[in-house]
Amino acid sequence: MKRVLKNCSVINEDLSIEKKDLYIDEGKFVDFVEAEVEENMNSMIVMPGLINTHTHAAMTLFRGVAEDVPLDRWLSDYIFPRESKLTEEDVYIGSLVGFMEMVKNGITTFVDMYFFPYAVAQAAEDVGIRGVVARGLADVDGHGKEKLKECEDFIHRYSSNPLIRGGVGPHALYTCSNGYFKESVEVARSNESLLTFHLLEGPSERADFRSRANVEAVDFLDSIGAFDEKTIVAHGTHLNDTELKLLSHKKVTISYNPTSNAKLGNGIAPISEAISNGVNITFGTDSAASNNSLNLFNEMKFGALIQRAYRELPTVMKVEELFKMATCNARKPLPFDVGKISAGMLADIVIINPNKLSMLPRKNLFSHLIYSFDTAAIEKVMVGGKWIYDGSFCNVDLGEVIERFEKTVNSIDSRI
Amino acid sequence: MKRVLKNCSVINEDLSIEKKDLYIDEGKFVDFVEAEVEENMNSMIVMPGLINTHTHAAMTLFRGVAEDVPLDRWLSDYIFPRESKLTEEDVYIGSLVGFMEMVKNGITTFVDMYFFPYAVAQAAEDVGIRGVVARGLADVDGHGKEKLKECEDFIHRYSSNPLIRGGVGPHALYTCSNGYFKESVEVARSNESLLTFHLLEGPSERADFRSRANVEAVDFLDSIGAFDEKTIVAHGTHLNDTELKLLSHKKVTISYNPTSNAKLGNGIAPISEAISNGVNITFGTDSAASNNSLNLFNEMKFGALIQRAYRELPTVMKVEELFKMATCNARKPLPFDVGKISAGMLADIVIINPNKLSMLPRKNLFSHLIYSFDTAAIEKVMVGGKWIYDGSFCNVDLGEVIERFEKTVNSIDSRI
Repeated sequence: MKRVLKNCSVINEDLSIEKKDLYIDEGKFVDFVEAEVEENMNSMIVMPGLINTHTHAAMTLFRGVAEDVPLDRWLSDYIFPRESKLTEEDVYIGSLVGFMEMVKNGITTFVDMYFFPYAVAQAAEDVGIRGVVARGLADVDGHGKEKLKECEDFIHRYSSNPLIRGGVGPHALYTCSNGYFKESVEVARSNESLLTFHLLEGPSERADFRSRANVEAVDFLDSIGAFDEKTIVAHGTHLNDTELKLLSHKKVTISYNPTSNAKLGNGIAPISEAISNGVNITFGTDSAASNNSLNLFNEMKFGALIQRAYRELPTVMKVEELFKMATCNARKPLPFDVGKISAGMLADIVIINPNKLSMLPRKNLFSHLIYSFDTAAIEKVMVGGKWIYDGSFCNVDLGEVIERFEKTVNSIDSRI
Repeated sequence: MKRVLKNCSVINEDLSIEKKDLYIDEGKFVDFVEAEVEENMNSMIVMPGLINTHTHAAMTLFRGVAEDVPLDRWLSDYIFPRESKLTEEDVYIGSLVGFMEMVKNGITTFVDMYFFPYAVAQAAEDVGIRGVVARGLADVDGHGKEKLKECEDFIHRYSSNPLIRGGVGPHALYTCSNGYFKESVEVARSNESLLTFHLLEGPSERADFRSRANVEAVDFLDSIGAFDEKTIVAHGTHLNDTELKLLSHKKVTISYNPTSNAKLGNGIAPISEAISNGVNITFGTDSAASNNSLNLFNEMKFGALIQRAYRELPTVMKVEELFKMATCNARKPLPFDVGKISAGMLADIVIINPNKLSMLPRKNLFSHLIYSFDTAAIEKVMVGGKWIYDGSFCNVDLGEVIERFEKTVNSIDSRI
């Protein structure tokens, strides 16, 4: 569909605001096209869709399942027993709700790590959101080989899908043997796919790995080629300065997950140091089980606040920097031309209504996008040139989804 | 108006959920009344309105005026020059927008500290929100006597207003001379009014006061009778354990303002220690200039997260505790019977629609109210038995307010 969106107030990559018309053809922005459909945006703000570089969408099934318990009990008593009973259909409906919440909150691209990748991909396609589905990999519980084969098959099968690409997701150094982690990296490299894994998320992981493997986690990963410009490291809460310099040199991207890090008691990631060292920083929501929202506007605000509180410094994490972390920075490791609005880029955008209390006074737009944003100001969301949210979800029925989701959660609880 | 709200899912003070009908007469809950109006709540969740124990509503005028600058420059170059030019009408419109945002976000009671108290009160009455208007007091810039007289006159004039009470707001030890602070405390006590002030908000205040006055700030305040059950201390970011014990003993309430403390680089308040010491803890948004939202759901989440991140402990600040901090805890120092839903209490409530993505799965309600809440789930807000918000504002025209607010902000900027 050839479209023109008239009277847009477009946020450019340099964060200037430009009044113009946007032309869209075959899912991408073009300089001009004879439009079949003309829509008036009435000077509303048009921003690139936000990019969520670390999530487990299906875990929306477990939102709020237990609060205020220690991390090991939360995992062993609540999360793992449920995950072990999940069917492909459960993962589909959990992912569907997760992706719907992301879209409603202005996210147009995700990087997901979970199992049943075909179900995750189907949910994304049904909602209309774009993303990388990284098959989660672990061999501590066996079946490592089959998982890796499924991962690679999925990558091949989705290699030309308009919305979805496969990725490789070795879960973490404590759930993968060193040999298996190395094989996973090789699968990612030989398929030119995105590689993503959890790294030094909690306070004990560094010492645990060293005592087991007799080498630092980061040094081991570097030795097997795990760090390059197609790698997204999730969390990195306990990386030190030398390691940040290495990641910067290797052009690795860190997915900063401030809410999840805080909520699970994992600490405060060294993000302002990472920025000083030139590391490419992006944002992730992690899952609704440990956040419990899927809202990158919250991450931008909280991610800045916690760095400032910890350092007693109100000047770190600048507004413009935060906005880039959630948009264009995230383009670098991804197989999609997303994160900015210009000819040749994918038409993934969010329309913001400036006539909201939370957006006043209107002159301080970027401040409001970071520090007072209320997602009620999101009027519409487009992915690949198609509206997927306009106050309602364009491709799915909310009422039916809620009913099916509630049934699924109750069924899972009855199985454990 | 005698009302009955049928089919409510009421959150009780002990956090049980009770299906029942709510009867309202003369602005309060009653056990039963022959209702003139009957409304069906369709099993929606009915919770007590949230209580914002520290704010400066008019400063919504300055939201986003400058970001990422050091605190002293933010104050001297941006805030103070504007505040010195404010008219009573400016304060009215700034407060109006602030109170509207609070109501939309489920706040039904506030404690405000600013100047032009009659304008603040008028804005609150026009929106329909309940609160204490504490005239801000300082004598470093002169005019201390007149301010204190205006404060006391205001208290008398509003002593039987259905929504508003006056309070006494000596700004801080660094803006009031010791003698003037003492006079302010006496005015509060002799009028049995709420007393509220900033205390040890930033990292340097303790040493500054000690070097000036040769006594610890808290000891001085205790010696002039500033601590009792009608006192709300704002921030308290740098209180030590001995001081927390004193505040507990004196039944003082602390208003915890986590976002503002973080954003201004003032640090992380010792709130889990304060709770262990039995101090009554409540939440404040502070102003939209330093938050930049007026949303206590955000404060509950962020206030817990930052305590957990700092301590690397996921078990501090429990969900039920956080909910009480934003509701019934705040009743203690206030002159209003608010914060719980039962016969004799003021009918100040928020209606929540559970059929929202952010509220799924439905079974984990309290977790969602704290950790995944989206204010789009707020259907209606009632204060004193009257609906003041039902998706739109019942008493004010949003479009007109926005237009007037934008004109006011531009006018203020043109004056400096």
